[in-house]
Amino acid sequence: MWWRAVLLVSFIAPALVSGGHNPCCSYPCENNGVCMTQGGNYYCDCANLDFYGKHCEIPTFMKKIKLFLKPSQSTLHNLLTSKKWLWNIVNSVPFLANAVMKKVYTMRSDMIDSPPTYTSEHEYITVDANFNYSVYTRTLPPVPKECPTPMGVWGKKVLPPAEDIVKAFFIRKEFIPEPLGTSALFPYFAQHFTHMFFKTDLKKGPQFQWGGHGVDVSHVYGKDRDSENNLRSFKDGKLKFQIIDGEEWPPLTSEADVPMGYPKGMEKTKQFALGHSFFGLLPGLFMYGTIWLREHNRVCDILKKEHPEWNDERLFQTAKLVILGETIKIVIEDYVKHLSNYNYDLIFNPELLFGEPFQYQNRIALEFNHLYHWHPLMPDEINISGTMYNLKEFMFHPELVVKHGMRNFVDSLSKQRAGLFGPRNHGPVTIPVVTELIKHGRTLRLQSFNQYRKRFDMEPIKSFEELTGEKKMAKQLEDFYGDVNAVEFYVGLIMEKRRHNSMFGDSLVQIGAPYSVKGLMANPICSPKYWKPSTFGGEVGFNIVKTSSLKKLFCENIKGECPLVSFRVPDYVEGDVTEFINQKLEL
Amino acid sequence: MWWRAVLLVSFIAPALVSGGHNPCCSYPCENNGVCMTQGGNYYCDCANLDFYGKHCEIPTFMKKIKLFLKPSQSTLHNLLTSKKWLWNIVNSVPFLANAVMKKVYTMRSDMIDSPPTYTSEHEYITVDANFNYSVYTRTLPPVPKECPTPMGVWGKKVLPPAEDIVKAFFIRKEFIPEPLGTSALFPYFAQHFTHMFFKTDLKKGPQFQWGGHGVDVSHVYGKDRDSENNLRSFKDGKLKFQIIDGEEWPPLTSEADVPMGYPKGMEKTKQFALGHSFFGLLPGLFMYGTIWLREHNRVCDILKKEHPEWNDERLFQTAKLVILGETIKIVIEDYVKHLSNYNYDLIFNPELLFGEPFQYQNRIALEFNHLYHWHPLMPDEINISGTMYNLKEFMFHPELVVKHGMRNFVDSLSKQRAGLFGPRNHGPVTIPVVTELIKHGRTLRLQSFNQYRKRFDMEPIKSFEELTGEKKMAKQLEDFYGDVNAVEFYVGLIMEKRRHNSMFGDSLVQIGAPYSVKGLMANPICSPKYWKPSTFGGEVGFNIVKTSSLKKLFCENIKGECPLVSFRVPDYVEGDVTEFINQKLEL
Repeated sequence: MWWRAVLLVSFIAPALVSGGHNPCCSYPCENNGVCMTQGGNYYCDCANLDFYGKHCEIPTFMKKIKLFLKPSQSTLHNLLTSKKWLWNIVNSVPFLANAVMKKVYTMRSDMIDSPPTYTSEHEYITVDANFNYSVYTRTLPPVPKECPTPMGVWGKKVLPPAEDIVKAFFIRKEFIPEPLGTSALFPYFAQHFTHMFFKTDLKKGPQFQWGGHGVDVSHVYGKDRDSENNLRSFKDGKLKFQIIDGEEWPPLTSEADVPMGYPKGMEKTKQFALGHSFFGLLPGLFMYGTIWLREHNRVCDILKKEHPEWNDERLFQTAKLVILGETIKIVIEDYVKHLSNYNYDLIFNPELLFGEPFQYQNRIALEFNHLYHWHPLMPDEINISGTMYNLKEFMFHPELVVKHGMRNFVDSLSKQRAGLFGPRNHGPVTIPVVTELIKHGRTLRLQSFNQYRKRFDMEPIKSFEELTGEKKMAKQLEDFYGDVNAVEFYVGLIMEKRRHNSMFGDSLVQIGAPYSVKGLMANPICSPKYWKPSTFGGEVGFNIVKTSSLKKLFCENIKGECPLVSFRVPDYVEGDVTEFINQKLEL
Repeated sequence: MWWRAVLLVSFIAPALVSGGHNPCCSYPCENNGVCMTQGGNYYCDCANLDFYGKHCEIPTFMKKIKLFLKPSQSTLHNLLTSKKWLWNIVNSVPFLANAVMKKVYTMRSDMIDSPPTYTSEHEYITVDANFNYSVYTRTLPPVPKECPTPMGVWGKKVLPPAEDIVKAFFIRKEFIPEPLGTSALFPYFAQHFTHMFFKTDLKKGPQFQWGGHGVDVSHVYGKDRDSENNLRSFKDGKLKFQIIDGEEWPPLTSEADVPMGYPKGMEKTKQFALGHSFFGLLPGLFMYGTIWLREHNRVCDILKKEHPEWNDERLFQTAKLVILGETIKIVIEDYVKHLSNYNYDLIFNPELLFGEPFQYQNRIALEFNHLYHWHPLMPDEINISGTMYNLKEFMFHPELVVKHGMRNFVDSLSKQRAGLFGPRNHGPVTIPVVTELIKHGRTLRLQSFNQYRKRFDMEPIKSFEELTGEKKMAKQLEDFYGDVNAVEFYVGLIMEKRRHNSMFGDSLVQIGAPYSVKGLMANPICSPKYWKPSTFGGEVGFNIVKTSSLKKLFCENIKGECPLVSFRVPDYVEGDVTEFINQKLEL
């Protein structure tokens, strides 16, 4: 065919094979160019990128200008976490605040391929990558099996045993507190929120999942129609509840027959029924499950007053939309605001994306799930109103929330310090979880930590010391991996030195934020056909969404005086635990 | 709450209830404004529209200008189907041709709500509308059950029996030929293509479906992984096949165990295995199934030559992507081109949508399924190489294609005339199908034909005579429905007078084209991360996609001289059957 010869000349830059293996194992293409083998050679497909050249290494003229003008990630981070006076101005001028937020939305979400491109099954694009919902998507495809090492060409042929890594770097000897004063209310929020979409189907394998690939409030309403129907009262739109000591609590499974993960022999009177099978297992999750139940029923009351003509079904469906809207609002403006530690007040305003080439679809990525293993944030002991509970006394005891009452419970979690996200701070209970996580990463042939840094527009780390910011652990890591390009994804995230004024290292934020922003703003309710008063029952419902906050969520649903509801402990003083942390990490 | 009072004044325009029923039953909001009850009153939510006012009836200033400049649908249609000299110029100047095509893509697909908004279960937006894939989506929600009539407020309280409608307007007495010379190759193409995504799960109900909501080539590769694996040879990427009389044909179910809908007792040697359970039942479908099988295997050979280093899996997955690309190319440039009858040559070029706010996601709408019931196009008898088969002799006889050979079969279908899409032209075999369709429309409370006209930016029809373009059937229709606003969706589509130079009436095109364009261009392979050479195995595979055509699909897969492959019969003369049609429809 005549055109083949022409195209070969113009598009394909052959290169010599090194060592006889798949030449794409060394990931020679830059700036997200796609490496293609051709016989024993390779070439880089730079189509639809702002780069060209043999390895997609040369920016186009326009891209060159953009790169020149673009501030570095760390400059941006430092700017956002300091200069409080500047941000006070920005925050109070809607035009400026919106312009910043639009930039945040688009910059972050542009990093995520949508429609999704890869799964754990193939190292290349397939039809299945889009049409198969039963697996997590992958941002980077797996390392080809025929590569010389598990990370492509870098590091050793065999990775060190996961148990050895965990033993050396993960196990908590003494609880290390979170240095920005994050309260225990925060990790439980993270856990309750993310359990709605991280639903690994381990029976099938770590790449399979059974969720809805996004923020679908299934943690409140159940995993399917059956569960939802069992949780509904079918009266005035409300969910079933019971009153204990004058407070509203979830019903028992005897009243609402939904699958809950309770151990055999657990007392029937402690077997509460919630939207997520896990939410009865930990009091922190039970607390969030309960508060959403109360909020749903409260919203139903408001909607019914507004719409006396509506039946149960419409009240229920509309309240569910309001709860979904509130969830996203609170996640962005309270939760992400806290974890970013920006002085800029993040805004939930879907209208900023109207008319933009933004995809209102989402797929949960395996890498996002791995990244979100934040167990170090969990303290070993929880102080509720002066009583100390260790995790063993806490687990399987949802009734503790009922016993202490919602007010005391949320107040206590707000006053208790969370743990540092970093090395040597995984509590004993979750050590098996993280060990398994590392093993899954290997089974699914996750690319290296540095490959992910490159994928998310960061410079690869050049040395172990640059990664950890100290020498001792760096040396140990080097003994394990041999090459800094061979460090595993999750291990890198845990070991990376914390960024100044941040709860996390550079990579966790730069990789996690795109998934997070994309997942929140790509929700259907943010699209122009949904984001309007009538979707939420009129202006009244729309305003519940637009004005909701974590504090209101609790305070409107607790009788009497409002307790402390805060992601930061009240006695936090900047730098109060720095010395302690440095000592524990032997920095 | 202070803000409520303010908002009530500014946003809510109450209106008196007429007759005590739900005031939204009369669909008072214009331009796709959302009607909301408020007690016994209503108001229209015009948010995110280019219209405002009590009934969203006043265009914004910018919209006013746009409306002023916009040519009418019929002006556009007449322009596109005449002025051949003008279109010859446009077609040959890529800049102009692309500009027109971009406008076609965006104008058509902007009509479709994406993410999807409604299902058959609720008359309002729900969370489920987006997250539930097991049902068809709905462009217009169902008519509320409490409305005075099945169409809201118009027409009679009880609709005429579906059987009476079918008897009066649908039954074919004598075959009426398609006036633009469409060949029988066309309806079988329509059928084989659309069966990939119209998959009603009738056991659950007419609103349920079990497909992938789009062009996923499941008609070639099977409905799930199991079927796909059974159809694969696992050698060189190819699908299983058998050689009969020197030609490549699908394997038997004894060789490839996939579910096929064969009747009990059918000879085992006629039970061929294909991607869709229906494709063995009709020789026309069997022909298309076979030609795609051959094309897949042909593409595998080309890819293997290009990539000797690839294994079976990669060859298979990449060939599947090429077949998907070819499908969309052929559908747009051959199939839609023919059915539009435009002198403008439609182009498949995904790059035209890059950077546009276009949603790369699709959901199959119930209305699209109803609209696509094109059984009148099927002739009662098929002439294959001089032998006349009636449909009874044709059905359940895939072996006829083998007997006559692929060349004779496609040649014969290309020379045989399809039927007119219009009244009194449903063959006896499919009468039960269309009767059931009308009943499903009622069960699912489809809005009226005129409501759909308004939804798709057309003026509602004002009289029965305007609808049918004649008097006799118009009178009969009026006796049945009483009010032109009460005509049912599918009945209206069939009864509407044919547009000059078109296979169909105005509404079918204006409603069908948006679904079609959206479904094709929203395919993931059209998105910037997919649409590049590496996705299709390099420039060679990419060029197979970019240069494919219906003619090539057959000719490259039939040995020897190429037969006639055409959606228009060779002996077509403009206006050759006009008089006959007018006589049959008593115009």
